[in-house]
Amino acid sequence: MLIKKAKSYGFCFGVKRAVEIAESSKNAVTLGPLIHNPLEIERLAKNYNVKFVDSLENIDKNIKRVIVRTHGIPKNNLEKLKEKNVEIIDATCPFVKKPQEIVEEMSRSGYDIVIFGDKNHPEIKGVMSYSVHNRVYVVLSPNELENIRLHEKIAVVAQTTRKIEDYLKITNYLIKNYKEVRVFNTICNATFENQDAVRELSQEADIMIIIGGKNSSNTKQLYNIAKENCESYLVEDESEINKNWFKNKRICGISAGASTPEWLVEKIISKIKEVT
Amino acid sequence: MLIKKAKSYGFCFGVKRAVEIAESSKNAVTLGPLIHNPLEIERLAKNYNVKFVDSLENIDKNIKRVIVRTHGIPKNNLEKLKEKNVEIIDATCPFVKKPQEIVEEMSRSGYDIVIFGDKNHPEIKGVMSYSVHNRVYVVLSPNELENIRLHEKIAVVAQTTRKIEDYLKITNYLIKNYKEVRVFNTICNATFENQDAVRELSQEADIMIIIGGKNSSNTKQLYNIAKENCESYLVEDESEINKNWFKNKRICGISAGASTPEWLVEKIISKIKEVT
Repeated sequence: MLIKKAKSYGFCFGVKRAVEIAESSKNAVTLGPLIHNPLEIERLAKNYNVKFVDSLENIDKNIKRVIVRTHGIPKNNLEKLKEKNVEIIDATCPFVKKPQEIVEEMSRSGYDIVIFGDKNHPEIKGVMSYSVHNRVYVVLSPNELENIRLHEKIAVVAQTTRKIEDYLKITNYLIKNYKEVRVFNTICNATFENQDAVRELSQEADIMIIIGGKNSSNTKQLYNIAKENCESYLVEDESEINKNWFKNKRICGISAGASTPEWLVEKIISKIKEVT
Repeated sequence: MLIKKAKSYGFCFGVKRAVEIAESSKNAVTLGPLIHNPLEIERLAKNYNVKFVDSLENIDKNIKRVIVRTHGIPKNNLEKLKEKNVEIIDATCPFVKKPQEIVEEMSRSGYDIVIFGDKNHPEIKGVMSYSVHNRVYVVLSPNELENIRLHEKIAVVAQTTRKIEDYLKITNYLIKNYKEVRVFNTICNATFENQDAVRELSQEADIMIIIGGKNSSNTKQLYNIAKENCESYLVEDESEINKNWFKNKRICGISAGASTPEWLVEKIISKIKEVT
């Protein structure tokens, strides 16, 4: 059977950078899981003694170094962290840092802030916390703005993983209704490059194996795209590989979420070769 | 026959203001026609001795006061005017002044400037002249931007009489392709209120009379909308009214361009009543 990897898959720039930071910060802890992949978290704990704590309260006196994870953290948590006697190692993705800085600067300049994203997502909780005033509105669609009377000057940012087409619906509504709309395109293309590659490969393949954490939303999106086109499976590790899946298949496509390390991809490919 | 006026027609705010300025500036000249209506220009000349000169060169020593017309003039013309020993009376529509100011301020702050509009229109010639650098691009559609590589920070304004839907095509293109797009909604709704009212009335009327200068683009737009729905005529004055038009008609609708004075509308209504 022919095994083909998608043209683009796996670690994005921010995740690759965060893992490298963790690898060079032995014995540090991360505040929340560094990335959305349990096996990679386990590897970092085992090989580098980089473990994670759930909350600020669990950072006790024995902890000397704390890594801020890729999604960033709310500003007041960062300040609380600074009050503790620890070294702070910032692994916030630079593409997430950008909207944080924009929100801080624009709110300081008196702009109302509109954020296109999910208010429960850690990235957005971080980004919105950087406003110096409380005129910050987190929305997923223009109709959520209809009952809000904003000031005439508005700055807009987007969650890095959102689609541009959906972002434009928000900005179009604002431009129609207000005098000045300062639009920052903070969307990161990495997610979409992986998605486009899965779409292409799954049209050619007879079966797709998507590798990633089951709590990773970008991995689930890859899986959803793949299964529209062929028989597809989402697996976290090689133990889930079932040889019956591959019977009478000619081409097996492989993709992986933005938090999935390359070593795991290789391990799964070996397993597939072994059983087929 | 029933004569019905459109819900909204005639003078917009900027034209009304310019005419009032001219009426209180006896013996002044305007640089170019004050507004796009020859009969109103004639009335201002006759009643207030406010005439117009075609170009700066024709402003001779006998002229003491010069009125800047509603569309505004290019910055260097204004400067040349200042060098002449005349009082300058600024009748530039405040809605046109706004994009002039924005272009000046944004270009000074280092933004590339995109203007959605017609580069041959006097309003746009004025607006674009306010940039302090030459990275100013006047376009009517997004494909005109495809071969231009702009800097990462862009400010956008629109000609006051353009449609918002067309403006959004430009801003969407820019937001997709650049990091920061500062969108100023400089579109004035007056034109569209007159258009909406003509659309409504022409569906009910058997004949529409549109009153305005034949060189006025907004008047021609009203005429084009009206004739889609019923027999329609564009007239500049009452002498053009032909009684045959009204035979077997029940409802006659009336509208007028943004430069058409109310006295002319009333004169034409009297004429229609006279012949029907």
